[in-house]
Amino acid sequence: MRIEARLEERGIVLPQPVKPYPGVQVRFAWVRVRDNRAYVSPHMELNEDGTVADLYGKVGAEVSPERARKAARGAALAMLASLKRELGDLDRVTAWLTVTGLINAAPDFEGNTEVLNGFSEVILDLYGEEAGLHARMAPGVATPFGQAVIVAAEVEVDT
Amino acid sequence: MRIEARLEERGIVLPQPVKPYPGVQVRFAWVRVRDNRAYVSPHMELNEDGTVADLYGKVGAEVSPERARKAARGAALAMLASLKRELGDLDRVTAWLTVTGLINAAPDFEGNTEVLNGFSEVILDLYGEEAGLHARMAPGVATPFGQAVIVAAEVEVDT
Amino acid sequence: MRIEARLEERGIVLPQPVKPYPGVQVRFAWVRVRDNRAYVSPHMELNEDGTVADLYGKVGAEVSPERARKAARGAALAMLASLKRELGDLDRVTAWLTVTGLINAAPDFEGNTEVLNGFSEVILDLYGEEAGLHARMAPGVATPFGQAVIVAAEVEVDT
Repeated sequence: MRIEARLEERGIVLPQPVKPYPGVQVRFAWVRVRDNRAYVSPHMELNEDGTVADLYGKVGAEVSPERARKAARGAALAMLASLKRELGDLDRVTAWLTVTGLINAAPDFEGNTEVLNGFSEVILDLYGEEAGLHARMAPGVATPFGQAVIVAAEVEVDT
Repeated sequence: MRIEARLEERGIVLPQPVKPYPGVQVRFAWVRVRDNRAYVSPHMELNEDGTVADLYGKVGAEVSPERARKAARGAALAMLASLKRELGDLDRVTAWLTVTGLINAAPDFEGNTEVLNGFSEVILDLYGEEAGLHARMAPGVATPFGQAVIVAAEVEVDT
Repeated sequence: MRIEARLEERGIVLPQPVKPYPGVQVRFAWVRVRDNRAYVSPHMELNEDGTVADLYGKVGAEVSPERARKAARGAALAMLASLKRELGDLDRVTAWLTVTGLINAAPDFEGNTEVLNGFSEVILDLYGEEAGLHARMAPGVATPFGQAVIVAAEVEVDT
């Protein structure tokens, strides 16, 4: 339980499971585990009770880059919460492989890299360079529901 | 041939192989199989003869969400047809892992999730929850040729 | 060293390692190798000294499709340079699996497929059909820094 000890040391409390929006049918897995891989659907910043943080709009317009960076960090915590529920112990994530940050970018916003650093930094802090370093991409797209930042991943898990 | 029996029970006929547009050079594989993985390039709704369904434009503007949802279902059938040709038997797909739905979304369209359910529901219906459930993402992007919805996937295959 | 011999035959010189922009913090791996996979973050066209080619703007507006196609080829060379540094020998790439080309597309640009052929053709030329053919996608998105074309990949590597 090394990772959970680190979370506690840092005073980080993971949120409850995501509560879907009323009326939205979830036809997918938040985390799909198969052999030594977990494929993780895009996660968004959550409040502690699992409700979706009220953060919509285009980054660089309605949402500031600083706020979006914080949302990327929040997405990491939501993802860790999902992985913990699915795997039992976050130490079972033995390597982060790829991260995809979908940024709801305003037409002239170009700071995607810095926004997604909010996600990567918490992962690197908790898992260290060897297990935590990952390839990643941060395209500016139109997100479902207009969420400012959502983040997907593929990780290696201990079977 | 369980999956093909289910297709027949439901009266679903898979389309012929995709006929590329005149003048377009296909420098990629529709399905790339390697060991126990098949990586599938984005597929679009096809007519039964393999010609691309005439469905272009921004979802939420020229293309209605309902029509786009049907196109996502059509993309699933086109993908199944490609997998069948490549693998011989659709039962060789032992697990759906990830699905990426590229939605040609109008600037203010936010219903990506519901659109891509059109894809996921046919996969879940045919393969069941254990094999069919998948992680997925549904970014709003600008698609090649302005196609309304195209869908890519990674699946596990029986070697 | 078959691939490097082919590069030499064709008179292709791979660029130096990418020099990040001043002030940009790189919190990710350009190449993440794990067992028999290498996950490659989006690469862009580089000058021979590793500085980023000065190519920004929307493809189909400020950047011509022909120039973007050349940038996709340049991204392939930058990626090969990164893989060579990480793996020692480009022959260790035993199969190209997936390629994701992020095209900074103007709203009405639809030629993504042809642009990304600039990437795929150099890979197919060097690796041949069996090892080089790949599934791929080419969404039009808003790229970091407004780069015209950046390309990510997943490849199989010889352990």
